[in-house]
Amino acid sequence: MKVTVYNEYLHEVEAESVRRVYPEGIHAALASAVREHVPGAQVRTATLREPEHGLTQEVVDSTDVLLWWGHKAHAEVSDDVAERVRRAVLDGMGLVVLHSGHLSKPFVRLMGTHGSLKWREADEKERLWNLQPGHPLLAGVPDHFELEQEEMYGERFDVPDPDELLMISWFQGGEVFRSLMTWRRGHGRVVYFRPGHETYPTYHHPVVRRIVANAAAYAAARVRRDDSTCPNPAALEPVPNPGKEHVLKP
Amino acid sequence: MKVTVYNEYLHEVEAESVRRVYPEGIHAALASAVREHVPGAQVRTATLREPEHGLTQEVVDSTDVLLWWGHKAHAEVSDDVAERVRRAVLDGMGLVVLHSGHLSKPFVRLMGTHGSLKWREADEKERLWNLQPGHPLLAGVPDHFELEQEEMYGERFDVPDPDELLMISWFQGGEVFRSLMTWRRGHGRVVYFRPGHETYPTYHHPVVRRIVANAAAYAAARVRRDDSTCPNPAALEPVPNPGKEHVLKP
Amino acid sequence: MKVTVYNEYLHEVEAESVRRVYPEGIHAALASAVREHVPGAQVRTATLREPEHGLTQEVVDSTDVLLWWGHKAHAEVSDDVAERVRRAVLDGMGLVVLHSGHLSKPFVRLMGTHGSLKWREADEKERLWNLQPGHPLLAGVPDHFELEQEEMYGERFDVPDPDELLMISWFQGGEVFRSLMTWRRGHGRVVYFRPGHETYPTYHHPVVRRIVANAAAYAAARVRRDDSTCPNPAALEPVPNPGKEHVLKP
Amino acid sequence: MKVTVYNEYLHEVEAESVRRVYPEGIHAALASAVREHVPGAQVRTATLREPEHGLTQEVVDSTDVLLWWGHKAHAEVSDDVAERVRRAVLDGMGLVVLHSGHLSKPFVRLMGTHGSLKWREADEKERLWNLQPGHPLLAGVPDHFELEQEEMYGERFDVPDPDELLMISWFQGGEVFRSLMTWRRGHGRVVYFRPGHETYPTYHHPVVRRIVANAAAYAAARVRRDDSTCPNPAALEPVPNPGKEHVLKP
Repeated sequence: MKVTVYNEYLHEVEAESVRRVYPEGIHAALASAVREHVPGAQVRTATLREPEHGLTQEVVDSTDVLLWWGHKAHAEVSDDVAERVRRAVLDGMGLVVLHSGHLSKPFVRLMGTHGSLKWREADEKERLWNLQPGHPLLAGVPDHFELEQEEMYGERFDVPDPDELLMISWFQGGEVFRSLMTWRRGHGRVVYFRPGHETYPTYHHPVVRRIVANAAAYAAARVRRDDSTCPNPAALEPVPNPGKEHVLKP
Repeated sequence: MKVTVYNEYLHEVEAESVRRVYPEGIHAALASAVREHVPGAQVRTATLREPEHGLTQEVVDSTDVLLWWGHKAHAEVSDDVAERVRRAVLDGMGLVVLHSGHLSKPFVRLMGTHGSLKWREADEKERLWNLQPGHPLLAGVPDHFELEQEEMYGERFDVPDPDELLMISWFQGGEVFRSLMTWRRGHGRVVYFRPGHETYPTYHHPVVRRIVANAAAYAAARVRRDDSTCPNPAALEPVPNPGKEHVLKP
Repeated sequence: MKVTVYNEYLHEVEAESVRRVYPEGIHAALASAVREHVPGAQVRTATLREPEHGLTQEVVDSTDVLLWWGHKAHAEVSDDVAERVRRAVLDGMGLVVLHSGHLSKPFVRLMGTHGSLKWREADEKERLWNLQPGHPLLAGVPDHFELEQEEMYGERFDVPDPDELLMISWFQGGEVFRSLMTWRRGHGRVVYFRPGHETYPTYHHPVVRRIVANAAAYAAARVRRDDSTCPNPAALEPVPNPGKEHVLKP
Repeated sequence: MKVTVYNEYLHEVEAESVRRVYPEGIHAALASAVREHVPGAQVRTATLREPEHGLTQEVVDSTDVLLWWGHKAHAEVSDDVAERVRRAVLDGMGLVVLHSGHLSKPFVRLMGTHGSLKWREADEKERLWNLQPGHPLLAGVPDHFELEQEEMYGERFDVPDPDELLMISWFQGGEVFRSLMTWRRGHGRVVYFRPGHETYPTYHHPVVRRIVANAAAYAAARVRRDDSTCPNPAALEPVPNPGKEHVLKP
């Protein structure tokens, strides 16, 4: 399983408070979570400031699942790379979108919606409830667990109804949120997992790490196939006018 | 109920064979179907060659449901108008996408997928099967009906799993197709209805006309509200750090 | 629209504390909510101790939507009446299941699952969040509202994934719950709405009353048709052996 | 992976024409398909005329996935065994329902619907279209394949909307059918796969065998846990009346 972890990697560089929590960057924490729980996973990382954000066509082509963490610089991700990621998902690559990635270009383009939500930074408690203990994405995850301090995300989360709703969050301040969801898009699978604000040690939490790794394994590509064009096959049964001339579709 | 019918309106102008079937344009046939079955509907039309394709901000803002027929000139629809339509749907406007509109910019942007499918022009028979006779979109529609000649569209149709699968087509040449589906996107509803190739009198067929009108009524806006941004509300319950400073989201 | 409200009607008879809240019974409160918000609705009531629980074949046959409140005496509902209700839903009747009706025979038989959940009586606060402000079932309902005291229901709620998830509850004690959901079953529609413990004045709350009435209107039958048997039609296209003998299905 | 194959095993005993196709019974053909494609699978069989139909509590408790083929004697399956199977699915066991099992007691009880459909025996061609080539249940399955002769099943198939629609059938006689679907129920997964009339060699077809085996592997239990009762937990956060007395739920 070939995993690529994309991280914007700006907060950690710019703010000492974040660097203390993630000294090697959020991408390093995510990569280690996958390595810890998925034996044999080959994990690379990519960051915004690298050429093509580290997500060249070659990297994307050889990625089974891409993890995405971004926050303040979504607009700096080039449209070309965003479209490359979207097409790779439709071809079968998995995509695990984390926390503030709900506004990232690849996620928004794959969902079609705004991805908007309520938010608040108040060091409040989050408790995540497990709706499907038998789902492979929740293997090893208890019926609920708590994060002592997190940013709040509240409904209405503007996304299409998911194929699978796996966890719902309770927040101390009074809100709720659908925190773990999956959608199929083309041949690929998209997972969204809510926790992970940069100022909290969320990606060091053992249950969070397990879910991140499970999500990567669940979304990893099973096929990789470009079905972007519209074929014009001959009929399989007799039809009135098999040789009819027509205008070609794109 | 304020209805706007968009039609590319090129085939009818360029080809005598199409003009014979739709002398006033496909938009006129669609508009008359809505007027016939939805008493009190106010129906306007818009075409590609008009300024802003007839879909100015004012027109879109005052539209409850937009019907969309396009085929050979999807690329000529401006990105601005496509995005205007997408945002209007997320705000609550309904969108009924017809036949070759599966590759139109608004539909592809709302779905996130390619919208690709198999196709063939061979004057073959299509039979549509009704999966939900109790659904308002299928009011007055029999358990199945036939179109003697239509273009074939075959699976795999590359769209997200629909919220509702309402009809499946059987084709003489051996293929099947999910022909009537709905998706919620934001506050709006999208309907896709397959039949309607420009060289056949499909939009004069009484059952097709009923479905087109039902689809318009079903998708028409119930709210109209811009939720594109992320609010930062105060907590509803006590939280540890209610006045915490933070970086604003877009 | 013909509405029947079923209520077990035992708590109100047996406990003064409940009678104080619902002096004419919970069914009377529910019936008045529907009458208040659905002009022209014809509303009847039915209770457990009546012959056939007030739900004779004649009553069920002439009901567009049935509301169901039961709690401590689910087992006393006869299997015949439960099956009658199930079949009526499959034929197109709407069913709105309230609060502790999650364990009622008709609901469990239509869902196929246990309907189990966590619960607690501790006079705690419930806050319900509106996920689809544009849905007809949530017309007139704010983005969230509170019930000062309610029984807690917590996830995992053992039901099939709903067709529509419309509200999620936050509870003071730390749990969350999918509080408003809909499922299609056969030609009918089932709605589950969580609030309504007998010791609290929940069904006097204006927003709750609006949702109860909206649910009744949304679920009301559009068709009524018995499709319980398997027809054996002649082929619509040529087949190799049209007159083949066979064993009849039930 | 522990697999149990249930077969009614009456047609093969009673009719020479069926025995010629399945000399050791349909269960033997299904068991060999699983063994062929799932290395290490432990496969047992069970038949109607055995005590408890071969599905004792011990057998069911030690089954990860149960395959079910039945046709003319659904009514002879005891309610106790049907309920045992239903509860095992809710506890996490997989269930793969084949062909005429659409009217079997366990399937109908888990779905809540009639399971009715159209049918015809006319030796006609069936072509199955693959809607999700990337799904594990369709690993190794081409984009479409044909069965030269099969019984026809046509829509409307009265089942709840599936979680996943994986294949649609085209029939020579003019009908269509959703032929491969999955539903989650409780902790378990149910798969329905259409083909397999007793008079045709369908379960000897290599692609059908692959799908049967894939379905078994996909549905096999990941957890096994009885969540049939409603726990009454203490609050996780402060509540007004934590020690309140109440009536116990069942």
